[in-house]
Amino acid sequence: MPRPETDIEAGREKLIHMAETIIRERGAISFTITDLAAEAGMSQSNVYRFFENKDQLAEVMAGRWFAELIAIIEDLVETEMPAEQKLYEFFARRLVIKRARFEEDPDLFRSYMELGDQHFEVIRGYVDLTDHYMASILAEAMEAGYFEGLELDAVVSLVNTMVQPFCNPNLMMNMMHLADEGRLRQVIDTILTGLKARDHSVSEKPALHIAH
Amino acid sequence: MPRPETDIEAGREKLIHMAETIIRERGAISFTITDLAAEAGMSQSNVYRFFENKDQLAEVMAGRWFAELIAIIEDLVETEMPAEQKLYEFFARRLVIKRARFEEDPDLFRSYMELGDQHFEVIRGYVDLTDHYMASILAEAMEAGYFEGLELDAVVSLVNTMVQPFCNPNLMMNMMHLADEGRLRQVIDTILTGLKARDHSVSEKPALHIAH
Repeated sequence: MPRPETDIEAGREKLIHMAETIIRERGAISFTITDLAAEAGMSQSNVYRFFENKDQLAEVMAGRWFAELIAIIEDLVETEMPAEQKLYEFFARRLVIKRARFEEDPDLFRSYMELGDQHFEVIRGYVDLTDHYMASILAEAMEAGYFEGLELDAVVSLVNTMVQPFCNPNLMMNMMHLADEGRLRQVIDTILTGLKARDHSVSEKPALHIAH
Repeated sequence: MPRPETDIEAGREKLIHMAETIIRERGAISFTITDLAAEAGMSQSNVYRFFENKDQLAEVMAGRWFAELIAIIEDLVETEMPAEQKLYEFFARRLVIKRARFEEDPDLFRSYMELGDQHFEVIRGYVDLTDHYMASILAEAMEAGYFEGLELDAVVSLVNTMVQPFCNPNLMMNMMHLADEGRLRQVIDTILTGLKARDHSVSEKPALHIAH
């Protein structure tokens, strides 16, 4: 039955745009289905034909937010490319999208972040999926000889701590001036060159460096 | 006239504790001097004897928040220590303090962050001072031969992007499980080993690595 499916889709689309208008103006914290019904000039029970509850609405909105980002990653993972470049692209391609979204509509971006914080159970799957793909790229880099002596899990968490301003949208909002592609390239190069297991004596006895 | 000074200090101290009670419970966003007067059982004009306005109250609260952190840094900067260790300690010593504060009272910690966001002009001086000291430690590391080919300003901003989960208290709240001293040590070692200027061809032609 394609017809009713389409009507439901069209109604959902319209309600999502209204939900965006509401959260853009008032933030996502106090947003309710009652507000949405009022904005849409619908009865609440009519809104529930399209979304079972606020959780389901948040889930659909998160799905739209992540769709392009996950598609970029899935495309990248299948592309033949040196692991070094792939690791850079993994962050750079999504950085471009997120920055464009922020610049296009900072209030809506901020409200989407709030919505995500409130419905983290919905976000978690996408975060885990992203980490899974990052791990597969880092494993390729390990096969190419990087991260000597470290386990993949350790590499994943260490890389995660060093790239936050380039991938965490909450932080990006405040660090947009620092989180550009040039610095990302430097950070990825630093990680590839410097991240490896070392014994505890290292910080007491650093490798010999020539003073300049 | 030490006596009135002391009375003013004692009154301020009491009001600050009340302000903390209020922001811990209700957050810092809607906090007003009227709330503070009500909580203290004082007239508003009486509260103004101690704090000219909410900005001055926020300034005093920020001063208390940063006092210990800045003292740690000033002590460290004057200590004779290899630059590698000093850079690690610069973050590690404050990480310990901030984590302890968070664990002792997460709601108050979160509310202090909100207060800081609302009064960023007050915070900026402390952030700039911290960056200034970090730059002096990074300059010592450069004299020891690290960060070859890079300017100090570039090093400061790159290091800032790579250590966020260990120094940005807003991010620490969400990344406490990752931001421990072991990972900090790894990140600092990675920065010292890997951060240097390189030409654009690097990511296309990585240094030879032995596959394992």
